[in-house]
Amino acid sequence: MPVNVVNVSRSPHACLRPVPIDNVDIVGGFWGRWVGETAREAIWHQYRMLEESDRLKRFRWAAGRTSERPLRSLFVFDDSDVYKWLEACGYYLAKRKEDELKGVVESVIDDIVAAQEEDGYLFTEHHGAPERRWQNLTFDHELYCAGHLIQGAIALHRSVGEEKLFWAAVKFANLIAETFNPDGIRGVCGHPEIEMALIELYRETGEKRYLETAEFFINERGRDSLRPPPEDRLSNALYRIFGGASYFVDHAPVRELSEIVGHAVRALYLNCGVTDLYMETGERSLLDAMERLWRNFVERKMYITGAAGSRYVSEAFGDDYELPNERAYAETCASIASFMWNWRMLLAMGEARFADIMELALYNSILSGISLDGTRYFYMNPLASSGGYSRSPWFPCACCPPNIARLLTSLPGYFYSTSERGLWVHLYGSSKATVNLDGVGVVFRQETDYPWRGEVKMTVECEEPATFSLLLRVPGWCDEPRVNVDGRVYRPRPSTYFELRRKWRGRTTVKASFPMKVRKIASHPYVRNNVGHVALARGPTVYCLESVDNRVDPRLVALERGTVFRERFRRELLGGVATLSFDAWVADSAGWSGRLYRSVEAPMLGRRKTRVNAIPYYAWANRGDSVMTVWLPLIDYWKRAPPKKSGR
Amino acid sequence: MPVNVVNVSRSPHACLRPVPIDNVDIVGGFWGRWVGETAREAIWHQYRMLEESDRLKRFRWAAGRTSERPLRSLFVFDDSDVYKWLEACGYYLAKRKEDELKGVVESVIDDIVAAQEEDGYLFTEHHGAPERRWQNLTFDHELYCAGHLIQGAIALHRSVGEEKLFWAAVKFANLIAETFNPDGIRGVCGHPEIEMALIELYRETGEKRYLETAEFFINERGRDSLRPPPEDRLSNALYRIFGGASYFVDHAPVRELSEIVGHAVRALYLNCGVTDLYMETGERSLLDAMERLWRNFVERKMYITGAAGSRYVSEAFGDDYELPNERAYAETCASIASFMWNWRMLLAMGEARFADIMELALYNSILSGISLDGTRYFYMNPLASSGGYSRSPWFPCACCPPNIARLLTSLPGYFYSTSERGLWVHLYGSSKATVNLDGVGVVFRQETDYPWRGEVKMTVECEEPATFSLLLRVPGWCDEPRVNVDGRVYRPRPSTYFELRRKWRGRTTVKASFPMKVRKIASHPYVRNNVGHVALARGPTVYCLESVDNRVDPRLVALERGTVFRERFRRELLGGVATLSFDAWVADSAGWSGRLYRSVEAPMLGRRKTRVNAIPYYAWANRGDSVMTVWLPLIDYWKRAPPKKSGR
Repeated sequence: MPVNVVNVSRSPHACLRPVPIDNVDIVGGFWGRWVGETAREAIWHQYRMLEESDRLKRFRWAAGRTSERPLRSLFVFDDSDVYKWLEACGYYLAKRKEDELKGVVESVIDDIVAAQEEDGYLFTEHHGAPERRWQNLTFDHELYCAGHLIQGAIALHRSVGEEKLFWAAVKFANLIAETFNPDGIRGVCGHPEIEMALIELYRETGEKRYLETAEFFINERGRDSLRPPPEDRLSNALYRIFGGASYFVDHAPVRELSEIVGHAVRALYLNCGVTDLYMETGERSLLDAMERLWRNFVERKMYITGAAGSRYVSEAFGDDYELPNERAYAETCASIASFMWNWRMLLAMGEARFADIMELALYNSILSGISLDGTRYFYMNPLASSGGYSRSPWFPCACCPPNIARLLTSLPGYFYSTSERGLWVHLYGSSKATVNLDGVGVVFRQETDYPWRGEVKMTVECEEPATFSLLLRVPGWCDEPRVNVDGRVYRPRPSTYFELRRKWRGRTTVKASFPMKVRKIASHPYVRNNVGHVALARGPTVYCLESVDNRVDPRLVALERGTVFRERFRRELLGGVATLSFDAWVADSAGWSGRLYRSVEAPMLGRRKTRVNAIPYYAWANRGDSVMTVWLPLIDYWKRAPPKKSGR
Repeated sequence: MPVNVVNVSRSPHACLRPVPIDNVDIVGGFWGRWVGETAREAIWHQYRMLEESDRLKRFRWAAGRTSERPLRSLFVFDDSDVYKWLEACGYYLAKRKEDELKGVVESVIDDIVAAQEEDGYLFTEHHGAPERRWQNLTFDHELYCAGHLIQGAIALHRSVGEEKLFWAAVKFANLIAETFNPDGIRGVCGHPEIEMALIELYRETGEKRYLETAEFFINERGRDSLRPPPEDRLSNALYRIFGGASYFVDHAPVRELSEIVGHAVRALYLNCGVTDLYMETGERSLLDAMERLWRNFVERKMYITGAAGSRYVSEAFGDDYELPNERAYAETCASIASFMWNWRMLLAMGEARFADIMELALYNSILSGISLDGTRYFYMNPLASSGGYSRSPWFPCACCPPNIARLLTSLPGYFYSTSERGLWVHLYGSSKATVNLDGVGVVFRQETDYPWRGEVKMTVECEEPATFSLLLRVPGWCDEPRVNVDGRVYRPRPSTYFELRRKWRGRTTVKASFPMKVRKIASHPYVRNNVGHVALARGPTVYCLESVDNRVDPRLVALERGTVFRERFRRELLGGVATLSFDAWVADSAGWSGRLYRSVEAPMLGRRKTRVNAIPYYAWANRGDSVMTVWLPLIDYWKRAPPKKSGR
């Protein structure tokens, strides 16, 4: 069965059809290690954590297979961590015969299925307390966990033909469909997730009522159904502290939304489901709402790393242009959720701007969520740190680790799509895809040192001559892209798909070149804390200064417009990264001893420049405690453009 | 009876003795309106709000005087709002015969006293539920409310000789002393307040066990007694969300503290109690801890407006140098708490740095908490706003309005102190103080337009010739202070008390001059969001740009080092304020349409300068919804100092 995360191959309103994971090989290059060793280490490490934290025991206990009570959890949604981990395993096993892992997966599934109740209900938090079922949709996360169960089951069903968990998921989905509908409970889950899961289950089974139930949940949202009853003091306190209806995106009907607000993962998961629904129904008002939210996100609320969520309070989006750096929340799961949503928008619309955002998040705020060895994680991904912030092997709320595991193991499935026009290339990285275009087998290969170098050598190999397009994403960050075929040079526009339509015969080489200059990027003047600062980026990668690479405190470094950067690939460093070195000014700190405020008349800069070294942002915090910053003051930020020469 | 907020006249380890409210007249000038009409409006407005919100009815209901249940409150500490309001009335009535208000106060007191239980316990939230008494010290605020009851009762006792509420407070204090001690309950209140209240009651009654009980609470703090029992899910959830022990300053014993952390008002109220305790016991380790916390606050965590508290999450102090502007929490109560603490530090140590902080908070983050007419309030006092943030007539958590009312009505009591050296002048403003120095009656007068002009004309009038010092605070913000007596000019050092010791005869005029240049102030480079920016200040007043005074969005305004400011007193504006106008650059915003990030190579400034107008920060948000900012980019911020001339 083709292994897709989102299988829109029969969705009437999708533009693109994904090329499934099992048809793509990531061969070496930048991604080889991440989707190989790192993903494997992450999976096994997380399995140990799931066991140590009693998350697996919860199922055995609910199944009556142990009388020992599992550790009391701080949160009610522990089950979902196991399901997301299974989903990661599903994609991982799509092309790898790893019997030990497969055995472990089977045993975990066995416990889960044994914990399922007669009628299909499955939620260990309510084991032995049937009276609590569906009683607190606001905070209980039953449907959220069900959604992850369904996604995990589909992944394994598609990749290894797993049936047991799959039918358990179907049984639970049936119960949900019977329970939630206009004649049943008119409610929604406090944490969206079930919507996209049910639509994927519809795609997998063809069973229309899953689509209808998802649509029901989407339609019911925004009717204030999540406000807890007055007598529930705990829920009311939490509801109030978290900010009320908007935290749950329950403050207005989905079709009326125009500002992205509330808990970032909730909002973005909901958008995944809504976009999925659009691809099935074609309802324009859904897509219009998504377009409004996308613009609001990308134009006013997205970190330069692609991250989402500005507030610790309720892990939420802030106001327009509210993007603090050190106190960025920027949850790993929110970046992944944005990636997942942009993927769906890309499938729906076929526009490069969505793939640009996927790439941005992927190389920056997603990868920053996991250590190079796969066993340490960030929950928050701040853009600056004064020290004391480091990665953890696990969290009491452990949503992020398995989320990044499933993202990494599914990554091959995001590289390519097809449509009636031909083959679409979304992401660059050494890889091979085998596709069938109008009955003709085509093997497509990339060889590249991307993201460190902008040259991508591609070959198209056809079984027999065929006419189709190769659609290459031209990254939005690139000023002077070039595509070279048979000696012809094209100069495509950035942030488009460059369409190379021709009759392909045998083996053809296509060379793309996306020159990577170091870019100094400013942010909108309403992002007040970044005024006067720039971030450095090269290719898709945003850079940072980390104290471990520098003699001077990164918080004191300032650069100028004329700064010359030395770009160097250092194989031995951080798994191999391109670094930037440059001469920089250093803010005077001596004059500040014991003072927080002083007259600006005194000199603000020290007397000498110093050499500093920048690394890709995603790779920071892999070498112990450190000070880090992405945004750097530009001392001639306000320098005016030279006046236009007059004709005289 | 002398009306002091903090009566340390017999405290063995206080340096200064306050001149009580009833010995000070504020006559016209800047403060005349605030402590007169504005305070009166505030008191009557708040009385209506206390009635409307059923806070007064709670007492009548608990007293069995009405069978109607009061509105359900969102919080448990509603009683304290009434007590703080009574405290405000107490100071207000010290010199004003306003019978209508006095009658209202008496009737409120009558209801309160009727609600008191047999044994002295008084907390309407637990009326009819005796089993809840003292059960949840973490969140129930019983002792916090008791503290405000005691403070309110003392104020009225001192000002109008009120006895009924006073003895009710004593009765409750006795119960507390019997209940909380080494042989009784070993616990503390989640919200400090009772400590300073009990010490003040000790000062009022001479009853030592109130001092002992306060010391007991201070000693017990930091022993983790506030962690809720595991079975209390609500309390545990809140405890965790708020950040655990440090939220309550319960993470370490008081004497070991070195960083100011946790809920800002809790931390600062605790410091008030600890400083009070030091003034009674002289225990050096207490003062050392306060000195460490003061330095940490002033050198790393205080807003340029004097405000405290950087985080919405738990209304708390942030990390060192964490001072966001638009998302500043900067609660009005926290600024008042800082004022109260610095007053106690000043009384204890007699150093001008404490009075400097009081003045800073007073003219900026405290006054900003109340509208010019006294009837609208800020809970948070951000240093920037993109609009949509306005003052409210009341809050569900209504701590701030009565707090600022009691601050305003007690303000005369903070102007002057005495010591064996003589008369100390802490604050400037037209006023008259009548004091007795070594048996000689002295009348001291100030005439001044402070804070708009730095000239202060003072007269010292003695009944008979006497030798003593006049100690004038020289504001820390002033570069070139001058004091002129009998034709002699002194040039005192800023942030000291200038001591003018002499034999005074009859009437002597002393002229002080504190020239008010517009200051461009930078903040420490670790305050990342202010790098490249300056704040404008003049005298004690910090300025802001508000959209209502400007054609250009204040967020786009940038200035340069050579900016010439036009300073103008505008009597008709905002109750009379000095404004600043200047020519400023405007950041290019047109080039940003639909973009959040772009290359810095494009011009960042528009082509023309524009005239802008700044007003004192405290006066913003009095003219409808607006955009506001305190910090402004300085386009030549990083300009290097000219190289020193070489000897050649």
